[in-house]
Amino acid sequence: MTSSATAPTRRRTSRSDAAARLLAAASSLMIERGSTEISLGDISERSGVNSALVKYHFGNKTGLLVALLERDAQSAMEQLNALLRADLSPTAKLKLHIAGVVNAYYRTPYLNRLIHDLLHQSSDEVARQVADFFVGPVVEFERQLLAEGIRRGEFRDVDPMIFYFTLFGAIDHMFYARHTLLYGFGVSEVTEDMRRKLIDLVTEMVLGAIKPG
Amino acid sequence: MTSSATAPTRRRTSRSDAAARLLAAASSLMIERGSTEISLGDISERSGVNSALVKYHFGNKTGLLVALLERDAQSAMEQLNALLRADLSPTAKLKLHIAGVVNAYYRTPYLNRLIHDLLHQSSDEVARQVADFFVGPVVEFERQLLAEGIRRGEFRDVDPMIFYFTLFGAIDHMFYARHTLLYGFGVSEVTEDMRRKLIDLVTEMVLGAIKPG
Repeated sequence: MTSSATAPTRRRTSRSDAAARLLAAASSLMIERGSTEISLGDISERSGVNSALVKYHFGNKTGLLVALLERDAQSAMEQLNALLRADLSPTAKLKLHIAGVVNAYYRTPYLNRLIHDLLHQSSDEVARQVADFFVGPVVEFERQLLAEGIRRGEFRDVDPMIFYFTLFGAIDHMFYARHTLLYGFGVSEVTEDMRRKLIDLVTEMVLGAIKPG
Repeated sequence: MTSSATAPTRRRTSRSDAAARLLAAASSLMIERGSTEISLGDISERSGVNSALVKYHFGNKTGLLVALLERDAQSAMEQLNALLRADLSPTAKLKLHIAGVVNAYYRTPYLNRLIHDLLHQSSDEVARQVADFFVGPVVEFERQLLAEGIRRGEFRDVDPMIFYFTLFGAIDHMFYARHTLLYGFGVSEVTEDMRRKLIDLVTEMVLGAIKPG
């Protein structure tokens, strides 16, 4: 299904059915519970796979969660690559990219929390692995898209790093900052209406900021 | 110096010199180390205040950190209130607000990390306290500023909640996501140049997105 969580390259290796079932069980449990707080016992029970195989395939629970994120990242990066090659204007591609990130967070609620736990709050080693398959390819995609937009006169020159952080931050915060949402606004979850408004506002922000003077 | 960390209201009570020295010591230690990882022993040694007084004044280390954040929030909120009353256009006020948040994160490096630890990664009770003095007043400030901008024809009508999350997220992410910065871009700290570019890009994004159609 996915390459080893500790493999330095993105080479796909065939992984056993048991490993794939463990990942699927972890994914469905986190979606059902709306939380990343799941135990190895829960995963084992849901998958019908002995929990000793978690150690064999992933080392530990963190390794399993990293592998799950990598599995999800792979399909996201395939979509980004297809988008880059598509016969669309850079502006249209950027709009689809923004909506794609918002929709990924909206449809797979554990994604945002796992990225934060593993990329931003974890050890350097785990963070480096996650950055390798989740940050690097997106940075490269945006760099190429910005360059294409400049070439075609649709975008002005903008620092790709500052662009990356403002775009991702603008999208991320509403999904991540659940206590702010609850105690600042009395809202307990991101609704369909909020999803749509977020796409609209971020799209206007980003396109407005990079249009040629 | 500041009201009790557990007090439900913002009423100021006079706090002992020892409490103020504990807060100042925690603040200077975190700035010097570039980290929020400080021990009660460190704080006690730096302040010259017996660590038993931490328990007396703040309950525990988390209580001390909440009180520090509240101390810092108070001066920030005084500036916001002054800004709201200032004889400036809503557009000018919004620009100063954006630069103010970026500069606060830049100048007081522990601020961003503490907010994340206490507001986004902590217990509901601690988060509610922090939201009470850090989120609520900013939400109210932005709501009034947006309303003033609409009245004066400078802004279009925009959902204040979506606006809050996109603005704060766009600013926050570069300061918060240190592993993304390091492994995605090979950058180990936010520089003066990045600070300036972030203010410029977020200002263009936000003003562009809310200007009247």
